[in-house]
Amino acid sequence: MSVNYQSIAGKQLSNSLWGADRILRAGQTGKRRKEFTEEYYAQFVSDRSQLGNLYRDHSLLTFDSSQFQGAKNIIEKLVSLPLNIEHRISDIYAQPSSLDIGSILVMVSGAIVIDEQEPQVYSQVFHLMPEGGSYYIFNDLFQLNYS
Amino acid sequence: MSVNYQSIAGKQLSNSLWGADRILRAGQTGKRRKEFTEEYYAQFVSDRSQLGNLYRDHSLLTFDSSQFQGAKNIIEKLVSLPLNIEHRISDIYAQPSSLDIGSILVMVSGAIVIDEQEPQVYSQVFHLMPEGGSYYIFNDLFQLNYS
Repeated sequence: MSVNYQSIAGKQLSNSLWGADRILRAGQTGKRRKEFTEEYYAQFVSDRSQLGNLYRDHSLLTFDSSQFQGAKNIIEKLVSLPLNIEHRISDIYAQPSSLDIGSILVMVSGAIVIDEQEPQVYSQVFHLMPEGGSYYIFNDLFQLNYS
Repeated sequence: MSVNYQSIAGKQLSNSLWGADRILRAGQTGKRRKEFTEEYYAQFVSDRSQLGNLYRDHSLLTFDSSQFQGAKNIIEKLVSLPLNIEHRISDIYAQPSSLDIGSILVMVSGAIVIDEQEPQVYSQVFHLMPEGGSYYIFNDLFQLNYS
């Protein structure tokens, strides 16, 4: 996987910006959080087994009330899902999630289409942690939303 | 407001538990995250202006694509919403969001009923940070989900 996470949430979220205008600058990461989400789902569709390098041993996935810890268990779960999954993104929000380490919370809402059945509304949260100029996923929470 | 946040996410999420069994113990916080969410919404309904002590100057709210920083601005936004709001919770997920500081991510999905109109499906994320034996809200993201 060749996603460049340095370009995704970027240094705009470093602590030096944690001032009155930070929230405005955080808004500038809109394009980047969109890139992260779109590239994540593109990789999910093309070969989700390759998403493992985005998770660590302490990463957590909650997938519709089941919990998984560690890249291996998380990828095992993702690979076990139906092969034909399409994500239709409606909204992507992001916020810096720390005063000092430059982590970022990304919240996605949209519809998921499994095996060309009726779309289901879902939300997903990614908590991205900086590491060596790029990011890994610390928290991943996926929730189907029922009306 | 008399919510005891020490009892909500608790010391179960401290770094000493960040081992193979941590995710199981994190599951034990299910009752506590439910308490947090229910007490937050109960306070929201009874007098949302009193929620200000749960936010800090650096706290962030994203409310359906608008962004607000600081307890004062956040409460101003919440108070500006229609008076008659009901939250119907479907699911509450939670994960520890740090290796060392005992912070916790809470993700809520459900339906919101405004002025007794048609329920709208929503998701909300609270990022809770420990402080003096209790918690404050660092990140708050509220998203309506459209099918």
